[in-house]
Amino acid sequence: MAGTALPSSRALARDLGLARNTVAETYGQLVAEGWLSARHGSGTWVTQRAGQLPSVGATAGRSAARGPRYDLRPGVPDVSAFPRAAWLAAARKALAAASAAELSYADPRGLPGLRTALAEYLARARGVAVTPDRVIVCAGFSQGMELVCEVLRARGSRELAVEAYGHPQHRGIAARSGLRVVPLPVDDRGADVAVLPGSRPPARQAGSPRLGAVLLTPAHQFPFGVILAPDRRRHVAEWAAATGAVVIEDDYDGEFRYDRQAVGALQPLAPESVVYAGTASKSLAPGLRLGWLVVPADLLDPIVDAKRTAGRLSSSLDQLALAELIRSGGYDRQVRRARLAYRRRRDRLIAALAAAVPDVRVAGIAAGLHALVRLPGGVAERDVVTRAAARGLAVHGLATTQAGEQDLGPALIVGYATPPPYAFSTAVARLCAALREVIGA
Amino acid sequence: MAGTALPSSRALARDLGLARNTVAETYGQLVAEGWLSARHGSGTWVTQRAGQLPSVGATAGRSAARGPRYDLRPGVPDVSAFPRAAWLAAARKALAAASAAELSYADPRGLPGLRTALAEYLARARGVAVTPDRVIVCAGFSQGMELVCEVLRARGSRELAVEAYGHPQHRGIAARSGLRVVPLPVDDRGADVAVLPGSRPPARQAGSPRLGAVLLTPAHQFPFGVILAPDRRRHVAEWAAATGAVVIEDDYDGEFRYDRQAVGALQPLAPESVVYAGTASKSLAPGLRLGWLVVPADLLDPIVDAKRTAGRLSSSLDQLALAELIRSGGYDRQVRRARLAYRRRRDRLIAALAAAVPDVRVAGIAAGLHALVRLPGGVAERDVVTRAAARGLAVHGLATTQAGEQDLGPALIVGYATPPPYAFSTAVARLCAALREVIGA
Repeated sequence: MAGTALPSSRALARDLGLARNTVAETYGQLVAEGWLSARHGSGTWVTQRAGQLPSVGATAGRSAARGPRYDLRPGVPDVSAFPRAAWLAAARKALAAASAAELSYADPRGLPGLRTALAEYLARARGVAVTPDRVIVCAGFSQGMELVCEVLRARGSRELAVEAYGHPQHRGIAARSGLRVVPLPVDDRGADVAVLPGSRPPARQAGSPRLGAVLLTPAHQFPFGVILAPDRRRHVAEWAAATGAVVIEDDYDGEFRYDRQAVGALQPLAPESVVYAGTASKSLAPGLRLGWLVVPADLLDPIVDAKRTAGRLSSSLDQLALAELIRSGGYDRQVRRARLAYRRRRDRLIAALAAAVPDVRVAGIAAGLHALVRLPGGVAERDVVTRAAARGLAVHGLATTQAGEQDLGPALIVGYATPPPYAFSTAVARLCAALREVIGA
Repeated sequence: MAGTALPSSRALARDLGLARNTVAETYGQLVAEGWLSARHGSGTWVTQRAGQLPSVGATAGRSAARGPRYDLRPGVPDVSAFPRAAWLAAARKALAAASAAELSYADPRGLPGLRTALAEYLARARGVAVTPDRVIVCAGFSQGMELVCEVLRARGSRELAVEAYGHPQHRGIAARSGLRVVPLPVDDRGADVAVLPGSRPPARQAGSPRLGAVLLTPAHQFPFGVILAPDRRRHVAEWAAATGAVVIEDDYDGEFRYDRQAVGALQPLAPESVVYAGTASKSLAPGLRLGWLVVPADLLDPIVDAKRTAGRLSSSLDQLALAELIRSGGYDRQVRRARLAYRRRRDRLIAALAAAVPDVRVAGIAAGLHALVRLPGGVAERDVVTRAAARGLAVHGLATTQAGEQDLGPALIVGYATPPPYAFSTAVARLCAALREVIGA
């Protein structure tokens, strides 16, 4: 509500288990975008504009546009590329064949047809060691993460190791489940898993509880975009198997690799220790709310039990349509098409930055839907974010993802997937202009 | 898993806040249906058959049939009547017009177009006092109930008054949220709300927390099928307004009234005290996972905040399609068609029972998707349930819904909506045969 006072960044950071910097940067960004206003000495407030949520008028059916005019924040694909015709064709075919059981209160693990299709797809496209009975359909990665964290906490885990830079929402989910997040340093070979607590303990006794837990993005570290190095993959797999720990593999952007062969999942190195998590939010649309877990045998029942509780079942109609889309090859086609489109965007972004602001270094570009634009030393992320906001462009600073004390310098996380095609060039031009203004190239 | 031991009915009843009878009856029913086996002195176990969950074969897309051959349990509509063509047409039209914002991470309250359509529909069809900004879309009634219970608990409520007979799942949701359920006696005028705690307190001070809370089914009490009497409606509305209590109105079967004009919602008597809850699970299909709340102003923000958390957003595609279905009049047509079909089934059920077992009395038939079949004194529900199970028919005894000590005698809750049309006559014939066997007509 407009006028509502927000908690101090210190208090909120404590509540959410985040670094204070992260919260402060997030507030700064929201101020820059006009959602919040800050007055020195009297805290941060929701502005009038933020109170005006999408108008719910009689013209119905279209939500009023909200937020920035141009959007280069990470995390959302170009939803204008959602394959509407293919989706509807799949929905029609699937609905015609759907059984009564599939339209009723359905299996909390997800519909059997979708779990079979996903198992086949994940084995083929991501190298996951999987049978359909290990697949659990969930409402996006967030719900999957929430289910796993709840189960880990109920089994006695107290902490979740996370990458020192990563999605603050995921750390928030862990914190709400009662897990303290412990940051692992990140370098150009991914998370430094050698520092995981108890990395060289005696072998686990059969049946002893899994207490250790770590969340990783092995295919394309968010936000740095590096691959978890092979020796580190082996190390974390062995560590988990030996200590009975659980690895949550967020296969972030796993389908969007541009410059070499796909990097497979970590999961097959230790299928009984790794919870593999994927989502249709990037390949299709976040509004679908469909994701999937592939889980070790001994976590299957507790996760399904958690999923069974109120309000956590996923829409059968969407599950039926997605299963048909995967079976028919339409999902693969959509991923290939999106990969090509995003690769072209990436190339255009790199070329534009090289021409306009040669002082910045672009990293993490071999895969995914975002690039890391490193700023020269002494340049404040916040200045660029503010200048961009003045031009109607939303972009995130690296600090919004920071979990701990490790500080890898100023950078922007440029999500180049979000704008619809007609807005992409202008968004990039405004980014370049904002950067030039601050860096003074 | 097959072979798993279940907790004692006493322990489970305590954990879930249910009457022990309810749990014992539920176990008995599952034993009768073959899912569990009970050995005297050694507890209750999951049978091998229950371990064989739906086979997930390469033939994909159809789940193997599971459970009883004929199903007269309450709670599930005839999903074979799901309006597939109308739904697909609505989905096509809605998807063609959908904005990027609607396909992305969308408003946690639900898409504006659906909230507008629901507000118009609920005002017209159910007499609800509602504007679109008071509507919150949720994943079925269960999620709505969970959200409300969590918010009530966080605001300091300790107890939720419930009807002495009602859905055990709903009591389970309240219990999981930390609310103790307190049964209210039920008679042929609905729940006896005069006994609500603090029914004649001093008027509430502005801003004082809402502590009292009650869950009611005013339109068609589940399972007795009676209407909450007008004086009781006024009483509970005044009680809530005066004490600051919250009434959760489960508008169970509100759309399915057969023998007179529709009974309106309780909510307009006290829109700032009543959370109105409805669902598409009965009118369309449970697999949709779409329901809705209409909430008082001061509960809006906390419920939306709870809904915003991980994994609780609803599918945008389904929301878009439902909004279009309502706007186009297709939803009204579906409700009318279903009402007619269920009314015919009710009449056939009553006629069959009257002919086969004149000793039973059928009640609660003016509305809804189930009838209460009262058994003669001395007849045990369990005997009928067991005989029916031997004939491949699942049916529930009244005791499965019992929350407290009030005991209104033996009866069956016959859900006549569930079977597909081709199976309805056989299901009813088997019910009559099982009743005749036990009652010996």
